[in-house]
Amino acid sequence: MANDKKFVEQITPMEEDFARWYTDIVKKADLIDYSSVKGCMIIRPYGYAIWENIQSILDKRFKETGVENVYMPLFIPESLLNKEKDHVEGFAPEVAWVTMGGEEKLQERLCVRPTSETLFCDHYANIIKSYRDLPKLYNQWCSVVRWEKTTRPFLRSREFLWQEGHTMHRTREEAEERTVMMLNLYADFFEQDLGMPVIRGKKTDKEKFAGAEATYTVEALMHDGKALQGGTSHNFGDGFAKAFGIQYLDSDNKLKYCNQTSWGVSTRIIGGIIMTHGDDSGLVLPPAVAPVQVIIIPVQQHKSGVLEAAEKLRKTLSDAGIRVKTDDSEQSPGWKFAEHEMRGVPLRIEIGPRDIEANSCVLVRRDNREKKVLPLDAVVTAVREEMDLLTKALYAKALENREKRTFQALDMEELKKIASEQSGYIKAMWCGDEACENKIKEEADLSSRCMPFNAESISDRCVCCGRPAKALVYWGKAY
Amino acid sequence: MANDKKFVEQITPMEEDFARWYTDIVKKADLIDYSSVKGCMIIRPYGYAIWENIQSILDKRFKETGVENVYMPLFIPESLLNKEKDHVEGFAPEVAWVTMGGEEKLQERLCVRPTSETLFCDHYANIIKSYRDLPKLYNQWCSVVRWEKTTRPFLRSREFLWQEGHTMHRTREEAEERTVMMLNLYADFFEQDLGMPVIRGKKTDKEKFAGAEATYTVEALMHDGKALQGGTSHNFGDGFAKAFGIQYLDSDNKLKYCNQTSWGVSTRIIGGIIMTHGDDSGLVLPPAVAPVQVIIIPVQQHKSGVLEAAEKLRKTLSDAGIRVKTDDSEQSPGWKFAEHEMRGVPLRIEIGPRDIEANSCVLVRRDNREKKVLPLDAVVTAVREEMDLLTKALYAKALENREKRTFQALDMEELKKIASEQSGYIKAMWCGDEACENKIKEEADLSSRCMPFNAESISDRCVCCGRPAKALVYWGKAY
Repeated sequence: MANDKKFVEQITPMEEDFARWYTDIVKKADLIDYSSVKGCMIIRPYGYAIWENIQSILDKRFKETGVENVYMPLFIPESLLNKEKDHVEGFAPEVAWVTMGGEEKLQERLCVRPTSETLFCDHYANIIKSYRDLPKLYNQWCSVVRWEKTTRPFLRSREFLWQEGHTMHRTREEAEERTVMMLNLYADFFEQDLGMPVIRGKKTDKEKFAGAEATYTVEALMHDGKALQGGTSHNFGDGFAKAFGIQYLDSDNKLKYCNQTSWGVSTRIIGGIIMTHGDDSGLVLPPAVAPVQVIIIPVQQHKSGVLEAAEKLRKTLSDAGIRVKTDDSEQSPGWKFAEHEMRGVPLRIEIGPRDIEANSCVLVRRDNREKKVLPLDAVVTAVREEMDLLTKALYAKALENREKRTFQALDMEELKKIASEQSGYIKAMWCGDEACENKIKEEADLSSRCMPFNAESISDRCVCCGRPAKALVYWGKAY
Repeated sequence: MANDKKFVEQITPMEEDFARWYTDIVKKADLIDYSSVKGCMIIRPYGYAIWENIQSILDKRFKETGVENVYMPLFIPESLLNKEKDHVEGFAPEVAWVTMGGEEKLQERLCVRPTSETLFCDHYANIIKSYRDLPKLYNQWCSVVRWEKTTRPFLRSREFLWQEGHTMHRTREEAEERTVMMLNLYADFFEQDLGMPVIRGKKTDKEKFAGAEATYTVEALMHDGKALQGGTSHNFGDGFAKAFGIQYLDSDNKLKYCNQTSWGVSTRIIGGIIMTHGDDSGLVLPPAVAPVQVIIIPVQQHKSGVLEAAEKLRKTLSDAGIRVKTDDSEQSPGWKFAEHEMRGVPLRIEIGPRDIEANSCVLVRRDNREKKVLPLDAVVTAVREEMDLLTKALYAKALENREKRTFQALDMEELKKIASEQSGYIKAMWCGDEACENKIKEEADLSSRCMPFNAESISDRCVCCGRPAKALVYWGKAY
């Protein structure tokens, strides 16, 4: 079963070439197609449906915390982008510029938004007057453009889809609270819904967002031991507020600057799902975001009653709110098994004449291919339970991979040795000096992924310079 | 009640200046804000929530007809835009061009999509091989850019949000069927959900979409007698398919060109709602898309039990799936009445000590301000009924306005006289010659809105040239 040769052999095995395995999957599972615009991808129905499910879960959770959606313009006038010094330095080198409108040269260049802090600030300066107007908790779902040199589907593309939340607060503490709240919201989503364990922590100054005072991150580890920044949440303090003049009249009748946050996740999550859970048979999707959670395969479908029983089962599951489809095409069951495994459908149900006679069906899990015979009248409960178990199993497997691939180093020799032999996280202490961070980058080709919250101390000396250590850092190679 | 002076006097009366009344409403009801980018608007939370409700209804209905969502790139290479001659002629004069990526001049200019036929065709050429791949029914929700000279919020802006469906079919008949199906889907949405009567019909060749064989339209009439094109659906035949080489191998083993449609509605619907239903107190929103369907105003809210009763009521309605909020701010009830009327909330419920004692509440409809006393235990049913009645009443009122403003003309003198004295539709026969259409534009400043389906004949002569008539046309001035 599940190994129709002609079909499966199209995917390069992971161990042979992980990068090719990845691109094989995004293409063969119909997630994306390449477009005529270099570095921009077409997100096909199956890939887009995953994104719609991600959106639907997160959008609901954002709104439960008081967030409201808005839509800001696609373009940022150059003068507006230039208002905050660090921000423009970070983004200007990689933006696309509109210089012509119709036949006419524009008086001022417009950049296609790489991120919208400047637009939100411009708007907030206009609408915030009093402490009664605060907090403002806005978010938008949109696409952004960054003119990257090397691109890969979902992971790094010149245009990608994301959400960007931008909030304004009365106090620094309130902004910090929101920054951490959104980071935890992301982390819970990754862990509980996507089955992806993440490290929650703070970025070093070198790695933080252009213009932010502090950037928090959730970092996931992919199957191959490379890290993926899953989502970030930034506290801007009042830096942008000062640059844009965003002031409110407080209850003590004094004008004060607002405190600001922003936070986002993008379609790169889909790349993360693929590289965390996928295997040599293809994609493995966590049920929470799978476009099809259950695929029903009728066995000996031309025999009397089989398609009717399959349809009855489909309707039962669908009525219970489960995303379910029946594949009654003319392909062989084996071909269908391979096809839907490749597309990562979490659960498969087989139903044929013998099952119908026994009033049962066969349930097969995508991750471990375990088979269970289920009585037909208990199928809804069983499917819900198996989806839950599957998510937890994905999490456990990914956590095991991370633990296996987490190392620690006390000095540079050790750090470089591990970095050259292994792929994963290296935990090491750091003095807080960017010079050491640069040296580690240069000599071991590792970047600082984050300083985890509540980290243990593994030494009191910096791994690089030997001076007193300030923080534990997770170092790694990253997508 | 409902006439707190300070508040209401900010809106220009409709009869005094309809255009100013309109912009007053979009600003004061917090639907939009102007941005730093000329001609691009910021859609604020209240305006965006209307769009989210429109999206949610339409997206569900599209999917029920088999449509799948995708995401295409934001950019179109100039050479791709140029592939279909009529299409590029129609759009090139009003597109924004990206000419720089980071510091580098691009080898080929990229236009920011004004519409995505060319991108969809490019992708379809890549993925369609056999008749088994057909039909393809794709849609995307995105923003598009058209470099307009004069702009107005929602009605005409350089960037707007929309959905664009692009489908490919085996036969011309199947494409035609889809074109008309989507037009009717739009028309039903306008009429049944938004309470906006529309004329369903075909555009003349002069007014059809650039590159289409036939364009169908739903045309709504605004309160001031100007028409608004609410949505369009195009049949492209195989014109683009030939330009882009989109062929499939049919079951008879012959290579054939695909037949194509596209169809879209945009945020201009929101402008249409405002100008159809609004009044001098502000916005009037159809319940189907109102962000808040019921606003609860506690009366004498500091008296014991009032806020508790309001909260209980809110929860009852919310649990029944009704979008409801309580305004327990410190403003006076009169101020609150005016505020939520201005924001177009369909139903208001007042609840105070005397109501609570009588186990009742007072329900007030936004459109006619009719008051009803309701027993608290029947409130869910009553609210649902009143929302339904309100939508029907909005429809009836808009239809009455349209009927009052629909005229007919048999010759040019009559046509010009009506056009100079009245604002609305003029029904007149047409020979089918574009010269007559141009002359009517020139002499009476009217454009052809559409040739309605199943139209009656009011004469056998063209209103302009007197030659034999081919069709009844609705003429008008349009937004």
